[in-house]
Amino acid sequence: MVISENIPPVEPDTSPKLSQLALNLITVGTDHHFEQVLDACVAHGIRIVSPWRSHYAEIGVNQAAALLRERSLSVSTVCRMSEFGAADSETAWQSAITEAHQVIGEAATLRAASITVIGGGLPIGGGSLTEARNRIERGLEQVLPSARAAGVNLAIEALHPMVAAERGGINTIAQAVAMAKGLGEGAGVMIDAYNTWWDPALSDSIADAKGWISGYQMSDWLVPTTDMAFDRGMPGEGVIDLPAIRSMVQEAGFQGPYEVEVLSARWSAQPLDTVLEAVTASFLKN
Amino acid sequence: MVISENIPPVEPDTSPKLSQLALNLITVGTDHHFEQVLDACVAHGIRIVSPWRSHYAEIGVNQAAALLRERSLSVSTVCRMSEFGAADSETAWQSAITEAHQVIGEAATLRAASITVIGGGLPIGGGSLTEARNRIERGLEQVLPSARAAGVNLAIEALHPMVAAERGGINTIAQAVAMAKGLGEGAGVMIDAYNTWWDPALSDSIADAKGWISGYQMSDWLVPTTDMAFDRGMPGEGVIDLPAIRSMVQEAGFQGPYEVEVLSARWSAQPLDTVLEAVTASFLKN
Repeated sequence: MVISENIPPVEPDTSPKLSQLALNLITVGTDHHFEQVLDACVAHGIRIVSPWRSHYAEIGVNQAAALLRERSLSVSTVCRMSEFGAADSETAWQSAITEAHQVIGEAATLRAASITVIGGGLPIGGGSLTEARNRIERGLEQVLPSARAAGVNLAIEALHPMVAAERGGINTIAQAVAMAKGLGEGAGVMIDAYNTWWDPALSDSIADAKGWISGYQMSDWLVPTTDMAFDRGMPGEGVIDLPAIRSMVQEAGFQGPYEVEVLSARWSAQPLDTVLEAVTASFLKN
Repeated sequence: MVISENIPPVEPDTSPKLSQLALNLITVGTDHHFEQVLDACVAHGIRIVSPWRSHYAEIGVNQAAALLRERSLSVSTVCRMSEFGAADSETAWQSAITEAHQVIGEAATLRAASITVIGGGLPIGGGSLTEARNRIERGLEQVLPSARAAGVNLAIEALHPMVAAERGGINTIAQAVAMAKGLGEGAGVMIDAYNTWWDPALSDSIADAKGWISGYQMSDWLVPTTDMAFDRGMPGEGVIDLPAIRSMVQEAGFQGPYEVEVLSARWSAQPLDTVLEAVTASFLKN
């Protein structure tokens, strides 16, 4: 509440600090050179990043780790573990397990705190969502010992129900929390505001996630939304009450870093500096 | 389970009968004359329809009722009550209440069993989803006595979370059931398979809806889905396990009619007979 226009409102202690910002690199797309992106992050005061595997595929994970180290940048999460759900054949299952071990190895090399687990959707051609969900759980159970040994958390993310069939069969925070608690140590939940803001049980589910929150991702829901994957808004551009969700996450004991992750064809087409300026400015307000 | 390829599986008693089919008229779009659509329904053995208000806007509800009566067609639901959520000004609120009373009057004239309540989304320009949800509940509370007096059930429908901001702030069956139970007699829930198939709590929520289910709507989720409103599939075209959801609804005591409601630019562009043939054939298998 603004008492007077001359007296600025008192910032609550929980307001975000730039030091808590992590940039999920998908926000700038996948066309820039990795090194160039890291330099731009440093220039904009961003000290933590979250790469997708495609960001370092060309240079390799060792080179990526070296470039990060040279700049004293840390890695919050690596995106992502994604193949269990659709793996309804023995071949596909082995490939999903192989992918999972590869991501764990890469995350360890990058000294990432966690891996975002979206789990995967239905097999090509369809299939049961319940079975896909069971495969995600079994897959995580199988690779969790490796993740524990590598010191990397498996952060289970509830994806938006609109991408359940195609990308991820975990679709509510309650479901992710139940799965993480069932798996035990080494598992956690990634709370993505864009994917879960609509959930009538949001507040209860986040409270119930206390002690299990591995990460928090922010972007905004645009009205209208014209694409089911790449039309997210920068925090503040849309209709999600992001400060309220951040407060829930904080009250559940999570202290950051908070990732800005904006999958947007519109934003990723902008110059790097323009995007990073928008990221830092919107982060501090949301 | 098929015991032998030569012995056809025994059909369960719960398999759908054509007499249980209701056609939600949005499936054929809004370009045909009302009378022409009704004649086509009769020709295809469809005895129950569910019109949207736009279907009879031009001829008026009395004429629509007469045309239905002449053909001995009944009406399952009228679609829809939709303005409370966004009504964040006194003017908008009065307009929402007026709309609601109008729909109740029309449903009574059409002798519809119920009105589909989607409730509405956020105000233009944004706003709180929690407040929109509260407005939906308050609005229904206010008009429920009229609905009871008219003998029309208010069937609260959980819309897909992808349209929460734009059209409907009720997004899980659990939320709809809680609202219906809170409102009491005269309220119920409309279970739309397309909007809720992804819900990890689907089976529990439908069981919990026992005694409160006012309707069941079927269409299918396509992979990929290219439009957030008009790219649904005919039952069987997509990935939803519709027979499983129908069983849940039946086990919760609902005996039909079951509405086929396919919002699809592709299907509504087809000739009437083509669409109705697909509707009846797919209904009997799902």
